Amino acid sequence: MPIKTYDTISGLRGELSARRSAGAGAGVGFVPTMGALHEGHISLVRRAAAENDITVVSIFLNPLQFDESADLDSYPKTLEADIRLCEAAGTDLVFCPSVREIYPDGASTRIEMDGPTDVLCGRSRPRHFSGVLTVVGKLFHIVEPDAAYFGEKDAQQLAVIRKMVRDLNMNVNIVGCPTVREADGLAMSSRNVHLNADERKASVCLFRALTAALEKLGDAAGHGAPEDDSEWARLTADVTGSARAVLDAEPLARTEYVELLDAETLAPLGGSSRAALCAIAARIGDTRLIDNMRFSLNE
Amino acid sequence: MPIKTYDTISGLRGELSARRSAGAGAGVGFVPTMGALHEGHISLVRRAAAENDITVVSIFLNPLQFDESADLDSYPKTLEADIRLCEAAGTDLVFCPSVREIYPDGASTRIEMDGPTDVLCGRSRPRHFSGVLTVVGKLFHIVEPDAAYFGEKDAQQLAVIRKMVRDLNMNVNIVGCPTVREADGLAMSSRNVHLNADERKASVCLFRALTAALEKLGDAAGHGAPEDDSEWARLTADVTGSARAVLDAEPLARTEYVELLDAETLAPLGGSSRAALCAIAARIGDTRLIDNMRFSLNE
Repeated sequence: MPIKTYDTISGLRGELSARRSAGAGAGVGFVPTMGALHEGHISLVRRAAAENDITVVSIFLNPLQFDESADLDSYPKTLEADIRLCEAAGTDLVFCPSVREIYPDGASTRIEMDGPTDVLCGRSRPRHFSGVLTVVGKLFHIVEPDAAYFGEKDAQQLAVIRKMVRDLNMNVNIVGCPTVREADGLAMSSRNVHLNADERKASVCLFRALTAALEKLGDAAGHGAPEDDSEWARLTADVTGSARAVLDAEPLARTEYVELLDAETLAPLGGSSRAALCAIAARIGDTRLIDNMRFSLNE
Repeated sequence: MPIKTYDTISGLRGELSARRSAGAGAGVGFVPTMGALHEGHISLVRRAAAENDITVVSIFLNPLQFDESADLDSYPKTLEADIRLCEAAGTDLVFCPSVREIYPDGASTRIEMDGPTDVLCGRSRPRHFSGVLTVVGKLFHIVEPDAAYFGEKDAQQLAVIRKMVRDLNMNVNIVGCPTVREADGLAMSSRNVHLNADERKASVCLFRALTAALEKLGDAAGHGAPEDDSEWARLTADVTGSARAVLDAEPLARTEYVELLDAETLAPLGGSSRAALCAIAARIGDTRLIDNMRFSLNE
């Protein structure tokens, strides 16, 4: 069937309901996006299409998750190209609602979380994750997917959404998918188009910093696991220090944070941690980029 | 089929899933309760059973919605009797989870709302409605009902839940059901058991105050609708004044609030209001009671 696009909740729900009652029932796969699609998004769509009967992509630039209006205004908007990319990757339905359709006058209910929303990007973007959780919760209620696909590049977003689903008993399987990278290691991001040629070259420092961090962590792991919190803290400082040194050596980069945390809880690492997440945010020129890598501990 | 009870989420979900795939599909009706069931609850269960294939009642004393631990501790707990009442009223499945099943260690996601949660009971119970919304949202995700039934006696709760469902696009039909009253007009409530004989007699003052308010409102409506905000404010003061006079005449009653608001938005009445809600909270002795009546304006 050719791809169909809907800009109303009732239109999308009607179509989904019709396809569900007609369908084989191997499920609905959902990929929520803010548009400006790149290979990272497309890898999610391909996986959703491979694993489900019906694949839905939403394209909605969610104002609630932008703490800075300049960032919202400059976010790339490429709807027609996005729809063609969705179609080529096996999407059945695209949902591209207006802001008013998602947030009508008077809407004032939010999903909030304490804990993993407060660290990393949550420090500089205090309303960001509440905006993400609220829109993702709404989209889950609209699409009612069996599985939803998110990139591991937004590691904190993925952790926070997994926690929301668990805490609120949402009946959806969250699938995290590997970060897709350019040939030199730069993580694909809609914001990469803002980089000029020099900045684009400099931006590989995030990948290199993560590689250095994980090398350090690998060395340390070879010497046995830390035995108490102070040893974990020293290990954390060593690992983030080696990443920070790589970023500091790049004149175009301004580091916002380099952290090594428990990959699931985003709390400091400790004896019960099954995996470590090394996460970086840095500005290259005016463009804020994030990246991360995960390192298995006791998994 | 005999009634079945479940205390785990996975047990209830498994049973619902089996019944849904076997069933005719006229839907799942859901009545969330905190137990200590009375005729008011039972009227909800009967309606749910009449309108749906599968009727689920949850019995969960939700600690998140109690601002005072003494109120939580003294709340009546009558699980075995509740299950028998559910069965007699046509319930198929009872869900009676532990606190830990609903709020495992580390759970920290909440549903929050600005606006109608801040007035009436929200003033003296600042965390109450977030607790209500969070548990009701969770229960909706667990049960995935087609329709959920709530008493109009908790008018603010009903308005706030309707708004959550609308704001977060939850796919459930919210059905409000009339307040069930004792012969003298006292609204049924699990807390009525705390009233001694004198207090029980005195407690009818809430019903009488509401009756006086609606009589006043009816008189005023006969003289034509207010033309501006100051006329609405004067009308509101007249109506709440006549209710307050009835409460003030009862020595055992201490009034917490008497308010007349837009029944849907819980904002002050105005030209666009379709119905007015007169709502009262008062302590009779140590027992806090609430009651309300609705008056149609332009509906």
